[in-house]
Amino acid sequence: MNKGRVFIISGPSGSGKDTLMKKVFEKAPDILFSISSITRPMRVGEVEGEKYNFISRERFEEMIANDELLEHNVFVGNYYGTPKAPVLNAVNDGKNMLIEVDVNGAYQILEKIPDAVSIFIMPPSLEILKARLTGRGTDEQSVIDKRLFEALREISCAKDYDYIVVNDDLETAANEFVSIMSVDKFKTDRNLELINKILNK
Amino acid sequence: MNKGRVFIISGPSGSGKDTLMKKVFEKAPDILFSISSITRPMRVGEVEGEKYNFISRERFEEMIANDELLEHNVFVGNYYGTPKAPVLNAVNDGKNMLIEVDVNGAYQILEKIPDAVSIFIMPPSLEILKARLTGRGTDEQSVIDKRLFEALREISCAKDYDYIVVNDDLETAANEFVSIMSVDKFKTDRNLELINKILNK
Repeated sequence: MNKGRVFIISGPSGSGKDTLMKKVFEKAPDILFSISSITRPMRVGEVEGEKYNFISRERFEEMIANDELLEHNVFVGNYYGTPKAPVLNAVNDGKNMLIEVDVNGAYQILEKIPDAVSIFIMPPSLEILKARLTGRGTDEQSVIDKRLFEALREISCAKDYDYIVVNDDLETAANEFVSIMSVDKFKTDRNLELINKILNK
Repeated sequence: MNKGRVFIISGPSGSGKDTLMKKVFEKAPDILFSISSITRPMRVGEVEGEKYNFISRERFEEMIANDELLEHNVFVGNYYGTPKAPVLNAVNDGKNMLIEVDVNGAYQILEKIPDAVSIFIMPPSLEILKARLTGRGTDEQSVIDKRLFEALREISCAKDYDYIVVNDDLETAANEFVSIMSVDKFKTDRNLELINKILNK
């Protein structure tokens, strides 16, 4: 069987990544999303196993020790990580698996899965990025400045990704995203079966 | 301005490459096709400058000496080659340029333009390949065998291409081909302008 592909998705605050991913899932409901393991407490409205598996710090550290994670990170004192097994199983089953991570996580995954395809979600301009980060205008300027600094730091890594999807019009961006995933199945490494069959290998 | 891309297309006899390229051109009439320079005499129905420029052997050898070609080859005593200037001009103008060549030509172009995207057109199975090469059954078996041998030799190089388009249903294959070209514009190397603009570089 031809293998599936890992897609790594990153995008800073203000890229509209989360809304875009929801729209992508509407258009391509067969896409598998990786579920992160995290040690922070569950928030109101969150469901175990939907976007996150909420696990203990002890279990997380065991996962690190056993090399059960594709990537992990610490954020405000909590662990965040991508379990390896579900991703590798999906790919071996010929399915695509989408992993949302920050640039740091992306680099870690690419080291372990060099043929993963990476997509960076970009805001359409600096002006729109600033407007999105300012939001409803209730935050202090220093908070907004920090968000902008962090967003620009992530964008400075965009050049290391395979594809850029500019999230200006949501519908257009979602279609572009889905087409990048669709075209991937024509890549040669996913068609070796046919080549070998014709050559009687 | 963002650069265009060179697409290298190969496919053996029996892949239906020529019919597919016509259909692709119907669907995407803005695609530029590279015109080969050749030294064989013009055949009935051929038009100068349409698919080929018919030039003298002396002029061709001058082009080789001046490094004016991206690739060239000798076939049954005649030279065939791809002039470099029109391809590089198109790409610098932000346009895509499609070059149809055999596997030998493809390797030569990839050495000069490493970021060219290569697409191999495949027959859907060995049985269909054989049936297509047998044609109307008027050719001698030895001729058919030679064609099959040559086709399989080309297919054994398919693994070196970026994409495989299986030409079973013509309409489907043409759509796949066009989508591969469309998605290419989301590759990061064609979006550096936006990244640099947002980062004020």
